[in-house]
Amino acid sequence: MRFPTIVPLTEIASLIGAQIIGSKQGAASGINEIHKVEEGDLVFVDHPKYYLKCINSAATYIIINQVTDFPAHKSLLLVDEPFEAYQKIVAHYRPFMPLQKTISDSANTGEGTFVMPGAVIGNHVQIGKDTIIYPNVVIMDHCIIGNNVIIQSGTVIGSDAFYYNKKTTREVHYKKMLSGGRVVVEDDVEIGANCTIDRGVSGDTVIGAGTKIDNLVHIGHDTVIGKNCLLAAQVGIAGATTIEDEVILWGQVGVSKTLTIGKGAEVYAQSGVPATIEGGRKYFGSPVEDAMTKKKELVWMKRIPVLWEKVFPPSSKGGTG
Amino acid sequence: MRFPTIVPLTEIASLIGAQIIGSKQGAASGINEIHKVEEGDLVFVDHPKYYLKCINSAATYIIINQVTDFPAHKSLLLVDEPFEAYQKIVAHYRPFMPLQKTISDSANTGEGTFVMPGAVIGNHVQIGKDTIIYPNVVIMDHCIIGNNVIIQSGTVIGSDAFYYNKKTTREVHYKKMLSGGRVVVEDDVEIGANCTIDRGVSGDTVIGAGTKIDNLVHIGHDTVIGKNCLLAAQVGIAGATTIEDEVILWGQVGVSKTLTIGKGAEVYAQSGVPATIEGGRKYFGSPVEDAMTKKKELVWMKRIPVLWEKVFPPSSKGGTG
Amino acid sequence: MRFPTIVPLTEIASLIGAQIIGSKQGAASGINEIHKVEEGDLVFVDHPKYYLKCINSAATYIIINQVTDFPAHKSLLLVDEPFEAYQKIVAHYRPFMPLQKTISDSANTGEGTFVMPGAVIGNHVQIGKDTIIYPNVVIMDHCIIGNNVIIQSGTVIGSDAFYYNKKTTREVHYKKMLSGGRVVVEDDVEIGANCTIDRGVSGDTVIGAGTKIDNLVHIGHDTVIGKNCLLAAQVGIAGATTIEDEVILWGQVGVSKTLTIGKGAEVYAQSGVPATIEGGRKYFGSPVEDAMTKKKELVWMKRIPVLWEKVFPPSSKGGTG
Repeated sequence: MRFPTIVPLTEIASLIGAQIIGSKQGAASGINEIHKVEEGDLVFVDHPKYYLKCINSAATYIIINQVTDFPAHKSLLLVDEPFEAYQKIVAHYRPFMPLQKTISDSANTGEGTFVMPGAVIGNHVQIGKDTIIYPNVVIMDHCIIGNNVIIQSGTVIGSDAFYYNKKTTREVHYKKMLSGGRVVVEDDVEIGANCTIDRGVSGDTVIGAGTKIDNLVHIGHDTVIGKNCLLAAQVGIAGATTIEDEVILWGQVGVSKTLTIGKGAEVYAQSGVPATIEGGRKYFGSPVEDAMTKKKELVWMKRIPVLWEKVFPPSSKGGTG
Repeated sequence: MRFPTIVPLTEIASLIGAQIIGSKQGAASGINEIHKVEEGDLVFVDHPKYYLKCINSAATYIIINQVTDFPAHKSLLLVDEPFEAYQKIVAHYRPFMPLQKTISDSANTGEGTFVMPGAVIGNHVQIGKDTIIYPNVVIMDHCIIGNNVIIQSGTVIGSDAFYYNKKTTREVHYKKMLSGGRVVVEDDVEIGANCTIDRGVSGDTVIGAGTKIDNLVHIGHDTVIGKNCLLAAQVGIAGATTIEDEVILWGQVGVSKTLTIGKGAEVYAQSGVPATIEGGRKYFGSPVEDAMTKKKELVWMKRIPVLWEKVFPPSSKGGTG
Repeated sequence: MRFPTIVPLTEIASLIGAQIIGSKQGAASGINEIHKVEEGDLVFVDHPKYYLKCINSAATYIIINQVTDFPAHKSLLLVDEPFEAYQKIVAHYRPFMPLQKTISDSANTGEGTFVMPGAVIGNHVQIGKDTIIYPNVVIMDHCIIGNNVIIQSGTVIGSDAFYYNKKTTREVHYKKMLSGGRVVVEDDVEIGANCTIDRGVSGDTVIGAGTKIDNLVHIGHDTVIGKNCLLAAQVGIAGATTIEDEVILWGQVGVSKTLTIGKGAEVYAQSGVPATIEGGRKYFGSPVEDAMTKKKELVWMKRIPVLWEKVFPPSSKGGTG
């Protein structure tokens, strides 16, 4: 998540009640999770297991709960609860602004774009040129929609991530991770009816140019979909996953989180993708395998009774030898 | 389904054209199906196979199509078509009231609660404090939403049950069972975008406190979900099922009707649950099995060709011995 | 797709810049794809492989990119790009009319029909008598809804087809096929919440009388569903498929395109139907098989370890034989 403008480190420290270890002179450009950080960013870490990874990441400022060695050009922000500090920062720079009107005054639509009745356009949303927003679509705050995009009725763009921190004291309970990111829909994208595309938690959820999405498709937070992909109806993709260009996912395919589907891969209907798969091939099954291998397996399954009869011949039951 | 106030038995009998067998003095507090009845309730039964079960249930008043022995403190309401009588009662005490306005005058929202543009709030709906209802959410009549609840855009709470009586004369046709129940969403629940939660037919559909639900999830009528559960995107749960506390269902899991998933069970993505499973374990597959057992099965499947080659060695085809 | 009135062939030729080969006297009643054409229709073909099939179809007028032999009572319309010509014709006779109001002035609703708040009714939509349209439903242009129909909240009727022509130059890209067809929902149909039913591309998508559809169901373009079918929650049916009368599809079933499911077939939950299946039987699995066969297969799978132990006995490893 980018801040609207660069923020002095001292302002951040004051907001979250942190002690600055190292230089107090810097200014932060945004806050992100470890896999998305850039130079100038804040990052947060609360488990010693990840200290080193965070301190050595591209991030310049580390919100941390213990003083640890760090490079001279970085600073630590020492707090008791880094996760709570993250939440405070997101809540402060992306404050909850309940929509008051169907189309926010701060939303912007380009020339030749139609927004049909019942559609709701959130604060600071930007929509390009020659785009059609069908009835009862919802586009929440800060999302970016390109040129020549079609979004069919009832689709929701920019819902909050399904992302919770599990706390177990006496019983399990879940604490929501605030979503500071956006959804970015590039040019020439078409999205069907009643889909849901969650905003990024710290980065952006991206739908690449020319990609076509059918109805009732779910796309999780921070997932990045490449150019000219096809996603058939009822596909579901979890969070922080990468779908490269020209991938085809047929109906009801499920894709797990934080994995990559390589360029040009094609996944047959109802398959489940639990881990990274390489591009240029066809896949089938839940969990997916190479489509041809899977089809052969289904044929082999039918041969078990034949094997059984050979290995345990019926006569052997009462056989007298 | 509870009646707004207690109703004299004679009023019910007159409404459905029933003859009262036994005491005419009582008053009914509600009407329910056999698995939900309480003392003071009406219940209905039209098949001799279920007469005994209904007469011996907690219900005090039995709508029935044949005189049958019954305990002295109960009464029978004798009609030709008990199912039709049930429909009449529900239609009378929960009459269809087409919404006239986006937010019904009889709906109630607590302090600190936001209802965003395009949301529709039905008659007699009660919403607690500090709750956020996102754009284009629909909450139908009589539903109850707790405190500190978040319901994201496009979700529908309180749609009618998918529950039909099959009639076969010359051809099959289906007669809708009227939904007199409600949806009750407890405190600290969060529900994603474009979900659907059906109201109970005779009882309530309940989402327990602290439970978090992702996008495009379907929950059937009269289903009761425990506390602090996680339901990932595109999960579907049929009617009258019980999900105990702290259950986790991953993406696209399907759960059949009238079963129980025990406390703390975790069901992996795309699995199908056709019958009751016990708590505290992990499950996978369609139909589900113990996750470890299922994974081993998938490994065994790959060994069939090896078995085949041993049992039917290639040389044996043209073998001369 | 039917034209509003019959159109002289010369008008069509002029619209698409075609040279007429054969009689110039005719008039066209509509334009359709090859599997839907009737006498008096236009059809288009751009690949020599399909020339003969199109010229010999019921269509009277063939938009084609090469002069080919044809029967005396037909005419050819010669153009360079038949697909582009098709798009021009659809765009001309079914022009994009962005909705200006929640309920179009050209929409029509019968006596006793309720349209609840937030519902959007498109241009030229016709709704019969005693029908209930719940909040935030969207019914797009030209769709037809019968009598005594119930459509629950958030459902979208008449979204555009997910139907693209693939063009590969340097990279893949997809060109949308315009949808000129309608959705026709017959009498006594009930449709759940947040469903999506796409309009036909050239013909109509039809939901037969008495059919009941649960929540979050997707039905593709030009698919025809028979009478008194049951479709449970989260079922997905691709385009141009035929579901005959009294078919039952349980939860999360997926059905591929351009196939037929025979009368009275029942498909168990989470199954996948990749090709035509005959009526009157029960099916299970992905891909589906006869339900009993599939269940036996699942039992056989569990016997592989027993086979293995017999064929490769543990003692044989270190056996001295």
